[in-house]
Amino acid sequence: MVTAILLINAERTRINDVAEQLADIEGITEVYSVSGPYDIIAMIRVTTNDDLADLVTNQLVKVDSIVKTETLLAFRTVSKHDLEAMFSIGI
Amino acid sequence: MVTAILLINAERTRINDVAEQLADIEGITEVYSVSGPYDIIAMIRVTTNDDLADLVTNQLVKVDSIVKTETLLAFRTVSKHDLEAMFSIGI
Amino acid sequence: MVTAILLINAERTRINDVAEQLADIEGITEVYSVSGPYDIIAMIRVTTNDDLADLVTNQLVKVDSIVKTETLLAFRTVSKHDLEAMFSIGI
Amino acid sequence: MVTAILLINAERTRINDVAEQLADIEGITEVYSVSGPYDIIAMIRVTTNDDLADLVTNQLVKVDSIVKTETLLAFRTVSKHDLEAMFSIGI
Amino acid sequence: MVTAILLINAERTRINDVAEQLADIEGITEVYSVSGPYDIIAMIRVTTNDDLADLVTNQLVKVDSIVKTETLLAFRTVSKHDLEAMFSIGI
Amino acid sequence: MVTAILLINAERTRINDVAEQLADIEGITEVYSVSGPYDIIAMIRVTTNDDLADLVTNQLVKVDSIVKTETLLAFRTVSKHDLEAMFSIGI
Amino acid sequence: MVTAILLINAERTRINDVAEQLADIEGITEVYSVSGPYDIIAMIRVTTNDDLADLVTNQLVKVDSIVKTETLLAFRTVSKHDLEAMFSIGI
Amino acid sequence: MVTAILLINAERTRINDVAEQLADIEGITEVYSVSGPYDIIAMIRVTTNDDLADLVTNQLVKVDSIVKTETLLAFRTVSKHDLEAMFSIGI
Amino acid sequence: MVTAILLINAERTRINDVAEQLADIEGITEVYSVSGPYDIIAMIRVTTNDDLADLVTNQLVKVDSIVKTETLLAFRTVSKHDLEAMFSIGI
Amino acid sequence: MVTAILLINAERTRINDVAEQLADIEGITEVYSVSGPYDIIAMIRVTTNDDLADLVTNQLVKVDSIVKTETLLAFRTVSKHDLEAMFSIGI
Repeated sequence: MVTAILLINAERTRINDVAEQLADIEGITEVYSVSGPYDIIAMIRVTTNDDLADLVTNQLVKVDSIVKTETLLAFRTVSKHDLEAMFSIGI
Repeated sequence: MVTAILLINAERTRINDVAEQLADIEGITEVYSVSGPYDIIAMIRVTTNDDLADLVTNQLVKVDSIVKTETLLAFRTVSKHDLEAMFSIGI
Repeated sequence: MVTAILLINAERTRINDVAEQLADIEGITEVYSVSGPYDIIAMIRVTTNDDLADLVTNQLVKVDSIVKTETLLAFRTVSKHDLEAMFSIGI
Repeated sequence: MVTAILLINAERTRINDVAEQLADIEGITEVYSVSGPYDIIAMIRVTTNDDLADLVTNQLVKVDSIVKTETLLAFRTVSKHDLEAMFSIGI
Repeated sequence: MVTAILLINAERTRINDVAEQLADIEGITEVYSVSGPYDIIAMIRVTTNDDLADLVTNQLVKVDSIVKTETLLAFRTVSKHDLEAMFSIGI
Repeated sequence: MVTAILLINAERTRINDVAEQLADIEGITEVYSVSGPYDIIAMIRVTTNDDLADLVTNQLVKVDSIVKTETLLAFRTVSKHDLEAMFSIGI
Repeated sequence: MVTAILLINAERTRINDVAEQLADIEGITEVYSVSGPYDIIAMIRVTTNDDLADLVTNQLVKVDSIVKTETLLAFRTVSKHDLEAMFSIGI
Repeated sequence: MVTAILLINAERTRINDVAEQLADIEGITEVYSVSGPYDIIAMIRVTTNDDLADLVTNQLVKVDSIVKTETLLAFRTVSKHDLEAMFSIGI
Repeated sequence: MVTAILLINAERTRINDVAEQLADIEGITEVYSVSGPYDIIAMIRVTTNDDLADLVTNQLVKVDSIVKTETLLAFRTVSKHDLEAMFSIGI
Repeated sequence: MVTAILLINAERTRINDVAEQLADIEGITEVYSVSGPYDIIAMIRVTTNDDLADLVTNQLVKVDSIVKTETLLAFRTVSKHDLEAMFSIGI
């Protein structure tokens, strides 16, 4: 599993909308609207780097009202939970 | 469930260690070492605001080699997955 | 009580208006127009995290002429005064 | 009443201590440890500008482990509460 | 006397105009167009904090072509000159 | 008269000392300790550019506990007062 | 061979287009769309400084939708590969 | 091939040394010492994301005198050259 | 001779034009279009501070497509060359 | 002629020393100590890119008390003066 984290700034009045559009994108598993310097944090969990590239360079650009995004690639994941299983099979 | 996201900068040579210490803290469910302006992103999922305050002001300060942390409170979560169930019962 | 602090930048000529609109929002107890890098500091004192999320993601976006907001969650409050009583019952 | 707001960064492991030292200073009425770019926000409510100058240039410098402070002078206060009465007489 | 210092950025082609409008405001005693990160530095010398608040929140906003202002409150003044006398009675 | 404005950051616990050392330097006519991103603002009023260069590159460096200085050259001065006369003859 | 590296920010929805236009410019040998603070990194390998100046000041300005570019001149290149041969003759 | 770009700041007097240490790491194909806000730009071309994670989180930390690194993941590569072939087989 | 250095940002597509307009201004002796955070560096060599003030506050504002300028006053000049003679008499 | 401009920050008390050391380096033709965000601006005029690389990566690192340098490569020079002749033959 390739994991990445999106730090997103959106237009102030459209944050809830943007969060919902993001959550509909295949490969984005969780979307959080947050306090602080970013408006939205989104988790990407996809199978390959090509899926990640497609999501970031083709899917994200279709979401209106995003002002800025920064993509953080996760090098390693440490968790008490089996995240790969959880997000593959859901519950 | 109270959800928060930690953006962490750590000493360059101690990032793997810090990630593992963080993952051992009760209430931190996932720790990612990442590319970009932060070294580590950690997810906090706890029951009350007091748990969050305790984690940030008492637990985090015991972890060596952290240089800077910023805590983002999640106002809303949008997900196709039932995150509350997933992180409560695990798999 | 959930306490948060809003750091707000507004359009230069509309600061007094914005301050008054903010003070009318349920849950915002004090609004200060200030010198320095921010134009307005507002105190939020609400009952639950959901009230805070509603205030920040639904109420604030209706206030015109705000340029940028940053929400700081108060983890702990230290005061010689009984703030919870003061702001619940007023005087 | 002269009102000012302190934005404070403190050493990461000493934030709770600093908050308590600040709350003991005459003229500081509330101290909040917070998420975000600052560690502590403190409210100053004093009688004269000279009190404010004394607090900032003589009292604050005695508090250890403060890294940076920025003082915001409140030009105007808008509140449903009678803050002057509340903080003069307490409850 | 309440003393404050304004750091001002103005539209590049209107700096001389802005400087002259500022110098006409009651309470602004000196206006300097300067090299460096700010375009204009202005000295405010007024009698009370309310005069300062009025100048900053009501008078300044009427000056066109100002892009950004930051107000610095002077806590203490050290001078070989008797500034209070000089700026009260002029020469 | 050559006029320049110094924006100074000093060690947090030494601001009053630094202000007094600065005020003793020939050519520095006023020193203000201030709120905001700088600790001290000082006015330089000297006769020639060489005096200014000497003050900044020889005199200032002898003052301990200064962390950073930025010198703004005043291109033009607008004032209802005759500053040149006031600061030459004093009162 | 004169080597330089372009750090480029482009309009969010036009990054793929910009990358392709850049790759068509004589002297730009590789174009990468990337995560992080820049959108595109491009390698310039030309024969003379005049070629570099022409590329940066005449060719780049014809590419639409670029927001900001920064040009880094490579002082030295260390590689296990013979880059000069590789990029002169291709494969 | 997984491609990433390292933006590196090193101690001012050790840049040449750092560049050479970096060039010796398996998976780093080119190292450029450059003008501008970074000291060194290095290209990483490895087979898998795990190789990239190992290089960044295990190999890089062994290089002395690095002050800061930022890793940019290349989503897409556009080039007139067959980079994959060139850097696999060399010349 | 009064020497100052202009750091200039101009509209990306107009840098060559701006450079030429600047070079035509009396008192600007050299104009460089450069790599890095500024687009153009220009040298000012004039006789008096009033010439400098006039150049910066009256002449520069007539040049279109300048986005931002910062003027650095040269306190001292060290050179193996007799710059004053060179730029007065030319060659 | 290859022209470059150095933007230098030096230790506050050593600026005059650093300026003189820089002026002694072959290829550095003028050194200015300046007001503003940098302490020293130095002009480099050398024959080849290799001379520039040698100056920046070998000569500059020998100068003590430099804190930070940024090198700007001049792409084009516009001047009423024949700079190449002036700095080659001197006067």
